[in-house]
Amino acid sequence: MDLKFVNKTRDKNNTTFKVGDVTVGSDFIAIAGPCSVESEEQIIRIAGQVKVAGANMLRGGAYKPRTSPYAFQGLGRKGLEYLRRAGDLTGLPIVTEVIDTRDVFLVCEYADVLQIGARNMQNYSLLQEVGRTRTPVLLKHGMHSTIEEWLSCAEYILNEGNEKIILCERGIRTIETYTRNTMDLSAVAALKQLTHLPVITDPSHGTGKVELIEPMCLSSLMAGCDGIMVEVHDRPQEALCDGAQSLLPAQFEVIMGKLNKLKAFKSTL
Amino acid sequence: MDLKFVNKTRDKNNTTFKVGDVTVGSDFIAIAGPCSVESEEQIIRIAGQVKVAGANMLRGGAYKPRTSPYAFQGLGRKGLEYLRRAGDLTGLPIVTEVIDTRDVFLVCEYADVLQIGARNMQNYSLLQEVGRTRTPVLLKHGMHSTIEEWLSCAEYILNEGNEKIILCERGIRTIETYTRNTMDLSAVAALKQLTHLPVITDPSHGTGKVELIEPMCLSSLMAGCDGIMVEVHDRPQEALCDGAQSLLPAQFEVIMGKLNKLKAFKSTL
Amino acid sequence: MDLKFVNKTRDKNNTTFKVGDVTVGSDFIAIAGPCSVESEEQIIRIAGQVKVAGANMLRGGAYKPRTSPYAFQGLGRKGLEYLRRAGDLTGLPIVTEVIDTRDVFLVCEYADVLQIGARNMQNYSLLQEVGRTRTPVLLKHGMHSTIEEWLSCAEYILNEGNEKIILCERGIRTIETYTRNTMDLSAVAALKQLTHLPVITDPSHGTGKVELIEPMCLSSLMAGCDGIMVEVHDRPQEALCDGAQSLLPAQFEVIMGKLNKLKAFKSTL
Amino acid sequence: MDLKFVNKTRDKNNTTFKVGDVTVGSDFIAIAGPCSVESEEQIIRIAGQVKVAGANMLRGGAYKPRTSPYAFQGLGRKGLEYLRRAGDLTGLPIVTEVIDTRDVFLVCEYADVLQIGARNMQNYSLLQEVGRTRTPVLLKHGMHSTIEEWLSCAEYILNEGNEKIILCERGIRTIETYTRNTMDLSAVAALKQLTHLPVITDPSHGTGKVELIEPMCLSSLMAGCDGIMVEVHDRPQEALCDGAQSLLPAQFEVIMGKLNKLKAFKSTL
Repeated sequence: MDLKFVNKTRDKNNTTFKVGDVTVGSDFIAIAGPCSVESEEQIIRIAGQVKVAGANMLRGGAYKPRTSPYAFQGLGRKGLEYLRRAGDLTGLPIVTEVIDTRDVFLVCEYADVLQIGARNMQNYSLLQEVGRTRTPVLLKHGMHSTIEEWLSCAEYILNEGNEKIILCERGIRTIETYTRNTMDLSAVAALKQLTHLPVITDPSHGTGKVELIEPMCLSSLMAGCDGIMVEVHDRPQEALCDGAQSLLPAQFEVIMGKLNKLKAFKSTL
Repeated sequence: MDLKFVNKTRDKNNTTFKVGDVTVGSDFIAIAGPCSVESEEQIIRIAGQVKVAGANMLRGGAYKPRTSPYAFQGLGRKGLEYLRRAGDLTGLPIVTEVIDTRDVFLVCEYADVLQIGARNMQNYSLLQEVGRTRTPVLLKHGMHSTIEEWLSCAEYILNEGNEKIILCERGIRTIETYTRNTMDLSAVAALKQLTHLPVITDPSHGTGKVELIEPMCLSSLMAGCDGIMVEVHDRPQEALCDGAQSLLPAQFEVIMGKLNKLKAFKSTL
Repeated sequence: MDLKFVNKTRDKNNTTFKVGDVTVGSDFIAIAGPCSVESEEQIIRIAGQVKVAGANMLRGGAYKPRTSPYAFQGLGRKGLEYLRRAGDLTGLPIVTEVIDTRDVFLVCEYADVLQIGARNMQNYSLLQEVGRTRTPVLLKHGMHSTIEEWLSCAEYILNEGNEKIILCERGIRTIETYTRNTMDLSAVAALKQLTHLPVITDPSHGTGKVELIEPMCLSSLMAGCDGIMVEVHDRPQEALCDGAQSLLPAQFEVIMGKLNKLKAFKSTL
Repeated sequence: MDLKFVNKTRDKNNTTFKVGDVTVGSDFIAIAGPCSVESEEQIIRIAGQVKVAGANMLRGGAYKPRTSPYAFQGLGRKGLEYLRRAGDLTGLPIVTEVIDTRDVFLVCEYADVLQIGARNMQNYSLLQEVGRTRTPVLLKHGMHSTIEEWLSCAEYILNEGNEKIILCERGIRTIETYTRNTMDLSAVAALKQLTHLPVITDPSHGTGKVELIEPMCLSSLMAGCDGIMVEVHDRPQEALCDGAQSLLPAQFEVIMGKLNKLKAFKSTL
């Protein structure tokens, strides 16, 4: 496909940009937090926990795209406010999903990074709308999409003038049923060769299984990723969604310790 | 999954509703037209051809979700106007895609049926927005989605109060590369047992090959579908998109003749 | 791919061959019977039932490739003997699977058609071995294989000198979980254009659901198939395998009635 | 599924066994060599190169399962002889594929490890036959098979008495076309939790692209694998098969250097 902006070229450095104190594309990104913002108290409490454990950004959903219309759909604007407060209190930049073109500028008022979820990867109107903002965008891999289609979606955003894009591998749908999705780490390695954009992985959605998150974080790093995003909840059995794939703060801290050591080692390799 | 409105139940008749003179869910629906509206002259010309050939609705895209941001994106509002004129001149109700929540009410002013494309099947904001209108919705099968997820998307629309839904099988993405997608006619047969909603098929996108459209139309009918949607263009080599899978008007007429005979025969079986 | 024998060409008629009284490729083939031969009494009883209901060949497994090593693996040679007796008593040619190169000539002594199952579609040694016999071969579609790979497997058999091949679509594995596999009827339509070999479908394995077999038989016929293969058992709840997808003889008879009428109608279309 | 032998249990240590000087399941396995044995000179030459570069086993195909019957099918018995000589001269144990039940005992005379390829993963007769030998078996992941089905295939071998099994992840077939297959490293991590058997990866077939092999080797190690298998050829452009995914000996040596360092580091984590 004929793409203008997304390709790695000889005269284009890898993209880096600041989100709070973090230099995306250079620092290792560790985005953590609950699947959804459930209450002000909950998100502030967990924000503190993930900060201590080593996160440098906070995630949490205010608008949740759920398979069933009767499942918890997120707190909406209230959720954004709570999230902002949690971010301000901890100093963590916040990452949250936007699912409607009409909400983009509202979400920009609260969020440091706009997430485009897997189901909306090819929602081109939404891509264009976030492309018109100056807020960084985390673009997830659509669960049925090829690497080339994913890059085309990043191109939609770039073409509107927003260059602050993070690609996030969260697995594709395959015939495997043991894991929730099939994480494609060769896509991570390939993207690091094809594009100048930073690439992270989301082993929580990628595997759907707590016990697989650590090995997939470590192997993601060796595949070349620039960071990870994981779900952390201190009371996973009470979580309103995705409890089964949420790490406890202590588990997340162990992983962060190993990731930091591995990152240091990798630079010597 | 716990769905309230979409399931077939003993005390619920199959859904039928009027679109122009056509009773969807009872009459056999034949939606035909070009992939995209290219000019006023083009859509009026082809509308006349498909009307003569047996179509009872006209399709044509004004907003086109394209993989590349540099591909033709449709004529937008102008396209809607041309389409409306073509519909008025021929008496054919028009079916056209809406891809942005902000355009829903605009598109409703022109369209008789709102199409939700495969890439937006799980764009829940869009589903809710079309659910709040009184305009019928044609909901395509997401290329990576199960039957159950598809029904959940219809439930999103029903839950907002709009009961006029047509499900359209257009194939899922599989390992097969000979065809553009893999049409799942067992999904059509299954849906006729699971839901009261009408179900049609789109062999143009399902197969991507002109020579497979006739057999897939005929087999769709025997699988239980309530209609078909096909791309027809009188100058496919000049079409701005999907020319390779477009029928000529004469080919479409032959198919309609066979479908009508087969439908009459089927009622005797 | 560069194939010599399998392609349809101007100067090559569609392949036809005799199996018992049936002319494969010309007569409509209806192969029916239980998943596996369970006893002499069982197979003779069911053979009589499917004959009355309209089958013109009898199926039954003596060697069963099962996912678990602890599941019933078939009666082996005894199964072949019982099957032969059932075939002789009813006059139905028998179709049975061979799964080991060492058994090919043994199975040929009993069977009228050798079945190569989906899991062995790319077992090239087995393909070559059946290609060296003069017994017709029913080659199932591998559940992960493209149309082109399937044709290459037929080419392996043709290249050894055996031209009596029946291709059997039984579905591929996709992300859909409602059905056991996803039957690809566009593959049937495509094969009728690509090759001179006869093509049938197996809606029992294709769907895994009794209630979908009738619509898929009828739609297969309109997609262009030359016959069907279905599992029939008079006591499905007692069947040693695949009971849940087995038709009762009376259900099979209804389907055969409709297929015969549809076939007659189709010739007038 | 109810499996007896393959599951990890409290009272069962991880399986280890000797192949030559290598303790599989404890030492890191590095199997390297050409896709196929092309001549005595070629395999002896490359064996020497991979030995120097750090391989501890030699791979090479004598029986090649090829999609086309007209592609090079391997040298057969001659190939085994050349391979044996190369193994003896270098001291490297040899790994080679067997594709026919009738060849199992012949191949055992030459090979130190019997490979079951992806296409034959569910060739149960072949699994049983290799299960009756005392030769270790390398069982590749079928390209359309779930983890559970793969473990069932290992169970077939274990159930015949052969406990020396190496599972080899080589990717599954998905909708991605950029890579030859999609390597599932979460399957590696999962298998290390589910079974006591050693697990290795094959990034050559997994990715089909030379430039992705290094990152996938390193990430495989962090996912928990016990070794790797890669294709190495000193004249890839002349290779009779798979040249495009073959490493040069020097490239392989670089990867081995990094793997050895990473392995040492990992033990400190």
